[in-house]
Amino acid sequence: MEMSESRTEISSLGEFGLIEHLTRNIELQNASSVVGVGDDAAVIDHFGKQTLVSTDLLIEGIHFDLMYTPLKHLGYKSVIVNLSDIYAMNGVPTQITLSLGISNRFSLEALDEFYEGVYAACEKYGVDLVGGDTASSQKGFIISVTAIGEVAPDQFVRRGTAQKGDLLCCSGDLGAAYLGLVFLEREKKIFLESPGVRADLEGEKYVIGRLLKPEARKDIIEFFAKEAIMPSAMMDISDGLSSEILHICAQSNLGCVLYEEKIPIADETRSAAFKFELDPTACALSGGEDYELLFTLSPAEHEKLVLNEQISVIGYMTEPEKGKKIVTKGGNHFDITAQGWNAFTAKG
Amino acid sequence: MEMSESRTEISSLGEFGLIEHLTRNIELQNASSVVGVGDDAAVIDHFGKQTLVSTDLLIEGIHFDLMYTPLKHLGYKSVIVNLSDIYAMNGVPTQITLSLGISNRFSLEALDEFYEGVYAACEKYGVDLVGGDTASSQKGFIISVTAIGEVAPDQFVRRGTAQKGDLLCCSGDLGAAYLGLVFLEREKKIFLESPGVRADLEGEKYVIGRLLKPEARKDIIEFFAKEAIMPSAMMDISDGLSSEILHICAQSNLGCVLYEEKIPIADETRSAAFKFELDPTACALSGGEDYELLFTLSPAEHEKLVLNEQISVIGYMTEPEKGKKIVTKGGNHFDITAQGWNAFTAKG
Repeated sequence: MEMSESRTEISSLGEFGLIEHLTRNIELQNASSVVGVGDDAAVIDHFGKQTLVSTDLLIEGIHFDLMYTPLKHLGYKSVIVNLSDIYAMNGVPTQITLSLGISNRFSLEALDEFYEGVYAACEKYGVDLVGGDTASSQKGFIISVTAIGEVAPDQFVRRGTAQKGDLLCCSGDLGAAYLGLVFLEREKKIFLESPGVRADLEGEKYVIGRLLKPEARKDIIEFFAKEAIMPSAMMDISDGLSSEILHICAQSNLGCVLYEEKIPIADETRSAAFKFELDPTACALSGGEDYELLFTLSPAEHEKLVLNEQISVIGYMTEPEKGKKIVTKGGNHFDITAQGWNAFTAKG
Repeated sequence: MEMSESRTEISSLGEFGLIEHLTRNIELQNASSVVGVGDDAAVIDHFGKQTLVSTDLLIEGIHFDLMYTPLKHLGYKSVIVNLSDIYAMNGVPTQITLSLGISNRFSLEALDEFYEGVYAACEKYGVDLVGGDTASSQKGFIISVTAIGEVAPDQFVRRGTAQKGDLLCCSGDLGAAYLGLVFLEREKKIFLESPGVRADLEGEKYVIGRLLKPEARKDIIEFFAKEAIMPSAMMDISDGLSSEILHICAQSNLGCVLYEEKIPIADETRSAAFKFELDPTACALSGGEDYELLFTLSPAEHEKLVLNEQISVIGYMTEPEKGKKIVTKGGNHFDITAQGWNAFTAKG
């Protein structure tokens, strides 16, 4: 391969910087391209009705470790992470395509196990697998899923449309998937050093389950529809709460105040964190893969939220000059910084 | 990874057998899923209007070799192979998503070069890049493209709907891309053995260009629309003519007669084949990556075709009992066998 004379390392930009750089000159040519690169999903207008498209690439050794990831769970999760992006646009997923790169160390039985998980997710979420591609891979298992969904005209919710004074909210609880990963990585290390030793992971079922078999928040989108709630901005939490909050602030040109004590963290997550002498708040802020929804909402709609105990109000949006702040339990104010999983530095 | 006790090698099924096996139990849940797995693209009905979706995964060392593939051409081709699938459904591509797995040997400048090719294809074919994902790859460059298109209601053309007596037709000329590959593989070998020697590839521009920078047959679909031609079945030729003809026969439950002398082969392809003592017909039948269209058409529409010298009538469809036959220039009848590129055995 011929290389240009100047060389800029990709890691110097980070994933989002890289995407911004590569897509900076895009001018959309089709009137049907309503929303392009830079949100959870693209929005395509088909004769007045709107289609959502989202895609993810999962690579063995980077995104998952087959030593402790059952193939059925991996198939399930590969679908979920894409459905989550469609829900994050306030849409309903309807179809997926699935492409796989497979090395010859995989048997047909192993692939069948993977597909069992794929079909289980499709059935649970009511989506159809409608296409894909299979290819050989020289090394490692490669999974590419594209999800397609529908949204009523102009009911999609983007990241950059939060308003000053809006409530900052999230679904479910945070930080668990990261602790599941910490546990499994430790067990892997112990197993590799002393293959006879089998750990007792019974007590960590919750956090490990959150990592290996996440769910997408279909229920929240259905709740919004039922209660006629329209978030002003929304995205899913895949890289950690702080990183996602910074996206909403940057794209909406706003600041925010986040209250540490309001961040929802499960008891199981807290006790798992303490075992590793980790701060549960740091796990929620910087851990990833929770696949919860982060959204902003006009305060006028606040009372509708009390019907749903799966939703927490964790802060509010401010003018940009006030910065992006977290108020700790001790009452201190700090800047929120993105220390989420970075695809180009983590586990590199 | 835990393996099941019984182990079936994936290579024992072949790519199409594998897809058939993995998708055998699919029951489509959404009324909007009009066409699922098993065609060039899926068809999704959105409130009466139809969306096409197609996806491909390209993996370094399997689908391309960066030693002789300029990154700009690779970007261009990654888009083209997907657009070709949308045209093969008689649709018009409108958007793509692009996901990349990138190892750290890639610089930003190298990626920019790749994207230049992507954008050049998008511009030429009038499609928008609307989303994607970037991830680290431990080894090799990984490209996943999903193309989205539109088709007027029920104007999509599938593979399994050819009729007995229909003409069998193809666009452009065949076999060139395979010979381009043969040349470049030879040059690579020579270069690796004697790095000082630089080959003169000037005479092989055509076949190499067909491999490295293919085009999708937008013009043919536009011609169909203008002349109100509706093929009875269609697909694109990516794995070699014989393999694709067998797909149309199998899915339409028909036989066919293919005339060797009617297969369109460019003069440049013939002379390249002779240099390697290869049979040009075999290259057209079993080579791949031509990205021409193969279609069937009612004989009543034959006279409309004479307006377009880019279309060749190469045979006709018969009842299934007559088999799938090729009539050689010498007048012999042979069975057509699939010896197209098989993703699981080629370049092992």
